[in-house]
Amino acid sequence: MGKAAIGVIGLAVMGRNLALNIESRGHAVAVYNRTREKTDELLAECPDRRLVPAYTLQEFVDSLEKPRRILLMVKAGEATDATIAAVKPLLDAGDILIDGGNTHFTDTIRRNQELAKAGLHFIGTGVSGGEEGALKGPSIMPGGPRDAYELVAPILTEIAAKAPDGEPCVTYIGPDGAGHFVKMVHNGIEYGDMQLIAESYAVLKQVAGLTNEALGKVYTEWNAGELDSYLIEITSKIFGKRDDETGNDLVDMILDRAAQKGTGKWTSQNALDLGVPLPLITESVFARVLSSLKTQRVAASKVLKGPQVEPFAGDRAAFVEAVRRALYLSKIISYAQGFAQLRAASEEYGWQLDFGAIAKIFRAGCIIRARFLQKITDAYAKEPALANLLLDPYFSELAHHYQAALREVVVAAVTAGVPVPAFASAIAYFDAYRSERLPANLVQAQRDYFGAHTFERIDRPGSFHADWA
Amino acid sequence: MGKAAIGVIGLAVMGRNLALNIESRGHAVAVYNRTREKTDELLAECPDRRLVPAYTLQEFVDSLEKPRRILLMVKAGEATDATIAAVKPLLDAGDILIDGGNTHFTDTIRRNQELAKAGLHFIGTGVSGGEEGALKGPSIMPGGPRDAYELVAPILTEIAAKAPDGEPCVTYIGPDGAGHFVKMVHNGIEYGDMQLIAESYAVLKQVAGLTNEALGKVYTEWNAGELDSYLIEITSKIFGKRDDETGNDLVDMILDRAAQKGTGKWTSQNALDLGVPLPLITESVFARVLSSLKTQRVAASKVLKGPQVEPFAGDRAAFVEAVRRALYLSKIISYAQGFAQLRAASEEYGWQLDFGAIAKIFRAGCIIRARFLQKITDAYAKEPALANLLLDPYFSELAHHYQAALREVVVAAVTAGVPVPAFASAIAYFDAYRSERLPANLVQAQRDYFGAHTFERIDRPGSFHADWA
Repeated sequence: MGKAAIGVIGLAVMGRNLALNIESRGHAVAVYNRTREKTDELLAECPDRRLVPAYTLQEFVDSLEKPRRILLMVKAGEATDATIAAVKPLLDAGDILIDGGNTHFTDTIRRNQELAKAGLHFIGTGVSGGEEGALKGPSIMPGGPRDAYELVAPILTEIAAKAPDGEPCVTYIGPDGAGHFVKMVHNGIEYGDMQLIAESYAVLKQVAGLTNEALGKVYTEWNAGELDSYLIEITSKIFGKRDDETGNDLVDMILDRAAQKGTGKWTSQNALDLGVPLPLITESVFARVLSSLKTQRVAASKVLKGPQVEPFAGDRAAFVEAVRRALYLSKIISYAQGFAQLRAASEEYGWQLDFGAIAKIFRAGCIIRARFLQKITDAYAKEPALANLLLDPYFSELAHHYQAALREVVVAAVTAGVPVPAFASAIAYFDAYRSERLPANLVQAQRDYFGAHTFERIDRPGSFHADWA
Repeated sequence: MGKAAIGVIGLAVMGRNLALNIESRGHAVAVYNRTREKTDELLAECPDRRLVPAYTLQEFVDSLEKPRRILLMVKAGEATDATIAAVKPLLDAGDILIDGGNTHFTDTIRRNQELAKAGLHFIGTGVSGGEEGALKGPSIMPGGPRDAYELVAPILTEIAAKAPDGEPCVTYIGPDGAGHFVKMVHNGIEYGDMQLIAESYAVLKQVAGLTNEALGKVYTEWNAGELDSYLIEITSKIFGKRDDETGNDLVDMILDRAAQKGTGKWTSQNALDLGVPLPLITESVFARVLSSLKTQRVAASKVLKGPQVEPFAGDRAAFVEAVRRALYLSKIISYAQGFAQLRAASEEYGWQLDFGAIAKIFRAGCIIRARFLQKITDAYAKEPALANLLLDPYFSELAHHYQAALREVVVAAVTAGVPVPAFASAIAYFDAYRSERLPANLVQAQRDYFGAHTFERIDRPGSFHADWA
């Protein structure tokens, strides 16, 4: 059947589904896996698809059109390095390797440099949307040499998710590690979104006493408005799911230990390196870590008492609306932090990121897909140099209207002893960012006092040291 | 005058002061600096001290008793590697290199391994107390081979600060990077302490309208009680300092952009790697970063409005006491997080840290010296396996009495639009840690829904996946 347009190495669920997605657009796809079983399985399950099985890398490479396009879908880290080392000697100058794994962007920068020396192109691309997205249309964030991107753009465009307005959710992100970086921040933002929803659930349940049935209705309603998003949608459905074994609501049978795969952690660590405030996502990462200390928490719950809490006596519908507003404003504050991190990275690594285009390709296919992303695209269209999303008129207006609700919800939760680290961090960031004057003058005075670290003055430039004692 | 007992390489202020401190205990000290000017300056300023100048590394090495004891006080990072590479060929097996710089503990682990291969001992030691501590008595946190530590222990013990009960503030911390790790966490805790004090200042000034004079009195009073500490003491003095140029209070003339040297950032990044919740210190690091965005904040202050705030109408003395309690409880929560990080590191890196002994050597010499550290030592003496300081009776009792005040202060600040990221993070951590049940079950449901990541159940062990759609 002639040469294949592209080949996929690594046939775990993501690689396999991307291969089937590409094939479904009319391309022959070469497939290779380190162990032949997965290849055979795929072929047996999909006998009528134009999949070209290869059982050695030489066979695989020989089955591809030139310049070869090879999508690596192997485990990030050493497995990726090993696969590149194995396939590299079989390739010709101008061939293109595409890493679609959850790779740390610094590895992608390094591999770009190493492969460029051998005349090979390397594209590190974020792929978001999970198994289903891979099969039917993910959001795709490719970074690398632009001319190499152009050679794979037609296929990536075909397989990408389509936004409500029909635009494919793929765009050239920038050089070397830019694509994997944007995917990392996407995941960090996802941690923040999920923690905020979890806190809204905790407050509605523990402060206002909502049942699972009521919660399901609330999230369904919210999904019809400003909060319209994939995560709110699945949340609304989660509360309606019965546990077959016990007949209880399944959500109540799930252990409250959140797991993680590390990309949220990377996002926070990078923000610390860049010197960008990213407290909300970081609180979300720590919240997962703290949830995992279940045994300690159960022991602590018997020792550490909280406040005496009265039954909810307010207007329940009004409180639900306050929580909705708190959630939406906190989400905006989280994205303001995440996009400020993208801006800082763009400057630090010389990427010239297009923030509006990035928000646009998040509109479908990926986990954080949401109606409000269009507002971010709009904001950067109006003002490409926007230092912080909160300064855009849509977002600042919204903050003016919704901040009272966010304050009310934090106050209610803190008073009732319900932990809301992300909500509380959101309002602290908002208040600090809009503060002309912060108490950091005292911190500088202390540093100069004990370590002669000097300080700046408000009335003239320079470094000063005082004789404090 | 015979051979010197110890030599110091690097005569910037910390190295120079440590050399003078050691000399003052009756030892001859060899001194060497990369450029000879600093050596000559030191000799000229201190003609009557037993300092042995060396102008080449060979001269320096030849002037030392064997086994040689060499204290490196050069810039952390490449300069330290370069100095070690230069001096290493001149040394004999059994000689001891001591790195007293602010080195990342992973570098110390690496250097330990490299130098052990050459038969050399390497001790990485934290030194805290700034210039004055170095001269008069710092807190010292040495890590490395225990037998090598014994060879330098007499000198380190002589020069260390003495706690109020007379005990020297030095103890063997543990193998390889343990000393520098503990110094790193010490610095992270210092970031937290300083941010909490800054927030107490902001709340007292912006919510309760205290003047600088009143603030000075408040911190002076606080320093006479449970909060008795070096940082509270210098804070009380800062508010009394006049600016000679303008006649204003100096604290008001200092620009509110807090600087940092990176050890707080390292502490947070390591906590993320270890999977230990360290939100308070991390919020403090981000608060410094956010303060440094002064230009953006000034612009944002003109766009983003806060709540309408009424003048303070409560009982001012009662509110001051609430802030004192909020500060003390938040500080305890911060140390609970920091010491939990030490425990996790001890397990991860095999260090067998003695947490009570560590708290003990913080009691004098270093920036975070405080009366309440004795309570930490006492807690671990009672229960060496204590998972979290908050579970110790003294701290849990205190939390029961003071949590209402912390909640009150957070509520007042959030309502008034005053950012208190560290106070808010403290109460969120407290409430989450004492929660038998957190909303992380929803996070796990979401992860299983969109990514088939599976969940655990509350009623039986295993991994489960639901068909959600």
